[in-house]
Amino acid sequence: MEKKMVEQITSMEVDFAQWFTDVCKKAELIDYSSIRGVFIYRPYGYAIWENIQRILDAEFKKQGVENVYMPLLIPESLLQKEKDHVEGFAPECAWVTTGGSEKLEERYAIRPTSETLFCEHFANVLHSYRELPMKYNQWCSVIRWEKSSRPFLRHREFLWQEGHTIHATAEEAKAFTETMLNVYADFCENVLAMPVTRGRKTEKEKFNGAEATYTIECMMHDRKALQAGTSHYFGDGFARQFDVEFTDKNNKKTNPHETSWGVSTRLIGGIIMTHGDDNGLVLPPKIAPIQAVIIPIAAHKGGVLEAADELLGTLSAAGIRTKCDTSDNSAGWKFAEYEMKGVPVRIELGPRDLEAGQCVLVSRVTREKKIVKLENIVEEVTAIMDEIHNALFERALKNREEHTYTATTFEEMKEIASTKGGFVKTMWCGDLECELKVKEEAGMSSRCMPFVQEEISDVCPICGKPAKHMIYWGVAY
Amino acid sequence: MEKKMVEQITSMEVDFAQWFTDVCKKAELIDYSSIRGVFIYRPYGYAIWENIQRILDAEFKKQGVENVYMPLLIPESLLQKEKDHVEGFAPECAWVTTGGSEKLEERYAIRPTSETLFCEHFANVLHSYRELPMKYNQWCSVIRWEKSSRPFLRHREFLWQEGHTIHATAEEAKAFTETMLNVYADFCENVLAMPVTRGRKTEKEKFNGAEATYTIECMMHDRKALQAGTSHYFGDGFARQFDVEFTDKNNKKTNPHETSWGVSTRLIGGIIMTHGDDNGLVLPPKIAPIQAVIIPIAAHKGGVLEAADELLGTLSAAGIRTKCDTSDNSAGWKFAEYEMKGVPVRIELGPRDLEAGQCVLVSRVTREKKIVKLENIVEEVTAIMDEIHNALFERALKNREEHTYTATTFEEMKEIASTKGGFVKTMWCGDLECELKVKEEAGMSSRCMPFVQEEISDVCPICGKPAKHMIYWGVAY
Repeated sequence: MEKKMVEQITSMEVDFAQWFTDVCKKAELIDYSSIRGVFIYRPYGYAIWENIQRILDAEFKKQGVENVYMPLLIPESLLQKEKDHVEGFAPECAWVTTGGSEKLEERYAIRPTSETLFCEHFANVLHSYRELPMKYNQWCSVIRWEKSSRPFLRHREFLWQEGHTIHATAEEAKAFTETMLNVYADFCENVLAMPVTRGRKTEKEKFNGAEATYTIECMMHDRKALQAGTSHYFGDGFARQFDVEFTDKNNKKTNPHETSWGVSTRLIGGIIMTHGDDNGLVLPPKIAPIQAVIIPIAAHKGGVLEAADELLGTLSAAGIRTKCDTSDNSAGWKFAEYEMKGVPVRIELGPRDLEAGQCVLVSRVTREKKIVKLENIVEEVTAIMDEIHNALFERALKNREEHTYTATTFEEMKEIASTKGGFVKTMWCGDLECELKVKEEAGMSSRCMPFVQEEISDVCPICGKPAKHMIYWGVAY
Repeated sequence: MEKKMVEQITSMEVDFAQWFTDVCKKAELIDYSSIRGVFIYRPYGYAIWENIQRILDAEFKKQGVENVYMPLLIPESLLQKEKDHVEGFAPECAWVTTGGSEKLEERYAIRPTSETLFCEHFANVLHSYRELPMKYNQWCSVIRWEKSSRPFLRHREFLWQEGHTIHATAEEAKAFTETMLNVYADFCENVLAMPVTRGRKTEKEKFNGAEATYTIECMMHDRKALQAGTSHYFGDGFARQFDVEFTDKNNKKTNPHETSWGVSTRLIGGIIMTHGDDNGLVLPPKIAPIQAVIIPIAAHKGGVLEAADELLGTLSAAGIRTKCDTSDNSAGWKFAEYEMKGVPVRIELGPRDLEAGQCVLVSRVTREKKIVKLENIVEEVTAIMDEIHNALFERALKNREEHTYTATTFEEMKEIASTKGGFVKTMWCGDLECELKVKEEAGMSSRCMPFVQEEISDVCPICGKPAKHMIYWGVAY
């Protein structure tokens, strides 16, 4: 089992970008459409998203969030109400200019994000402090007409969720911004087995129109960074622009404080690049569309198919997403196929196993075979899935820890960036000038100022002025 | 409890259209956006849709259907590939002409429906008969730039699902078209408590590009018809146009046979107009966001709030969607509020009830009060919800039966249409000319040729020629 089973996938070490594209295409996650940069989410790729949605949506609801659906189209005048916001998004909007046979009086943007629509709606429905907080979310697609594209990582149209909340006080809104970042962080770690670094974005990297942007940053297998989710605090700036106000307890008109937060199908790109290997996809069990696949061996022999079907029934009844592949492809073909598709647990069942009342479990991660009693199958599969989750998390954490470097001089930073990759941890004066210099000369962007700060030194390694923050740098997707 | 509790809703008898709009707005189902004909789905309205989605999606999956997500945008050249299809939809498309700062070389339509996109994708991914059938579905929004609009019934943007399947043979595809119509019909009757008439659309009324369209038609409280769901059989026409083909068992290139089928948030309009009354919304229990609301009476008295909270816990744990309203609004205000919102079961709990170990259940439909033991609460609420579902279904069925008329002359048809409303059941020769005449002179459109046919007479009442089908006519939303 040491050899590369799936020959059609480029090796990660040879060409990571090509490996990634191969996996997306050959594991049938995605297809290209006739519009450049717009992708089709195929059943297997979409099923991963459905599992992400189901689990995250339940977490949102625990936080008192309700789902809504806002319009797809934003009148240009509405988008322009908030200056920073429109500057950030207008250049990459797709514009509708004709409705039916008539030319529209005003252009409509297909939503790149919906702060403006939520604000307009909040202004309509908010009256009294009694109605606060309002915590809304929507699952939808958005369009950003960017030049370059890549499956899951950069689509002109992508699926996401966007949460928008308004609160009576700044304190409550700030706290909720952090709460939602932590919901994302816990989800990434506990469900996707992706370790995250939690922190705050610099002024340069924050969301257009936000007062503060919090982020979770993950390290991919190739040591590049992926921004996996963000949560924004807006203060009352948008509310003022959009006349969102309420009567407070003292009967005074007041503007509420806002937040917004989102994750997208980019998370699937993160899963692929965190856990995948040269045989293809490796899926964390909690979001795998197929958690266990049963492969009958010598299926023509008496009783094997029946036993496989019974096993399928037992596992399915226990809530384990199981498939039994009874197609006439060879067992070897099937092994390779489900390896490539990243199914966490393979179950082999042949006539001799059956006689002995057992079957063979194979872990997608370690490839270890384990012979287990059929009567214990649910416990055994559950246990191996837990092991897989933990192994994936530990492996990703190790990768991050081994490739997070501390630097105290700009020379060191450049050296690490050009020879090692990964996260470079330094102090920073807080000036945009130094941030731009790191981008220009070391090719790294600021990732975040982690919530957990360390005092590496007193000075900014770029300019030598007194340091204000510890910060992470990296090359990002 | 006889008097009208919610004064702000127009009476149905006074102005049914205004009653409907009042309910949509005051029950907080919907809000207007700044684009005419585009509506916002508010939390309470969207929660109904989420319940519809959850139940229908599980039914689809039982039929082997997998979810996908196709692009929002359709290049004009792709939309034009099927002549009948483009003629039907192009006049009401919204067109994107600019992406970012660049004018597009070709216009893109925002999908009004996605047959063309699915066909293009099928052509890419289909190779062998072994891959058939492919049964795909997507939940999304579509845009149809129509002139008039009405909440839930006619939006320029609305939420729906569209299923698209391809099959190796015509027989299999035809059978699946009917299977999905029956899934819709059973859902309407068993979940939404809306009786349906199943049948086939005439050539005039069928979907653009389809060989046959099947429909379920419901009668609303005002006796108008609502087309609640449709299922289309395409033959291999689209497949030929889009070069969708597969190698069959004899190694011959063949075109598959297609179906598509959809329901939309129009179903919510149907629920409102089937079950609602002068106090507002009445929701079938299976899709009600709140199935039971607990209203503590004299809540300041010792133990009431604690007992209400315990009741909430008990019902929630049993899977009954329950809310406990502990706000400082009066009990009378709360009664009216949840009546208006159509919550099926109200639970009143006061100090004296508590002493007696009981509470009061009130049905939204009959308004009957029933005193029940707290220890039996789950069984009692479950039973009353079943009663409500059945009562709603029976009431709607009675309305339909009382307002379905048989006619054998054109005079009779016109008389019924102008004085009674409802469905008019006649024979029909099958000619477009007669169908148009009924529209022009009696103001009714053909609804469907029911699967269950009766032989009312031998001749078409409009032209006197031999009759081919029994058909239903009506005034439709």
